[in-house]
Amino acid sequence: MSTCLTPKVVNFNEKLDLISEYWQPKVIAQMNDYQFKIVKILGDFVMHTHASTDETFIVLEGKLRIDFKDDSVCINAGEMYVVPAKTAHKPYAENEVKLLLIEPCGLTNTGDEGGTRTAPNDIWI
Amino acid sequence: MSTCLTPKVVNFNEKLDLISEYWQPKVIAQMNDYQFKIVKILGDFVMHTHASTDETFIVLEGKLRIDFKDDSVCINAGEMYVVPAKTAHKPYAENEVKLLLIEPCGLTNTGDEGGTRTAPNDIWI
Repeated sequence: MSTCLTPKVVNFNEKLDLISEYWQPKVIAQMNDYQFKIVKILGDFVMHTHASTDETFIVLEGKLRIDFKDDSVCINAGEMYVVPAKTAHKPYAENEVKLLLIEPCGLTNTGDEGGTRTAPNDIWI
Repeated sequence: MSTCLTPKVVNFNEKLDLISEYWQPKVIAQMNDYQFKIVKILGDFVMHTHASTDETFIVLEGKLRIDFKDDSVCINAGEMYVVPAKTAHKPYAENEVKLLLIEPCGLTNTGDEGGTRTAPNDIWI
């Protein structure tokens, strides 16, 4: 089992205040081989898939829409959604949304799709 | 990889409204082989250890204290804390606290300690 890298209490708003760029997830805590990341998003992303893992979205502020191939879901502050593995999805935020993501260490934000929106991994704040 | 058991959006407050008993975690979502559980707590628990996994506490409402052998931490709403594996810990709530727990499927709430506070596992709401 991994050594815990987060010996201290983590305050979501304090960490969010350290972020200015959109679509750049930052790691705030780790549990075993999973990481907790916060990210601010605005506008549209790329449709992508994670072949080998589910991915959890918890909305801290704002209203997130996740588009799938044939439909979409809306997730408000105080709500969560788990995108199943192998499911193509595209986050969208009409206005700024503040998210907590939970996913395995090393997962790439753009999944199988790559491209210019791919963010560096394992960046702690 | 597991089939996702939570195809719908989960609202924390709606789920919390379904709980009346203290210290009885209920599963609200699953990501791979990890589960998200909500629980209301009040008063003192038993000091216990999880030998093989970290455990994540996210405070949704109230003020949680976690006591360790030699010290303690306080975690407020909008904050999280990861208790490392093999670390004896005891949650405490002077007033009611509403928590989101994230931990591997099948983890027993009282860890190695057992006793009357042990809650049934894998109860979904």
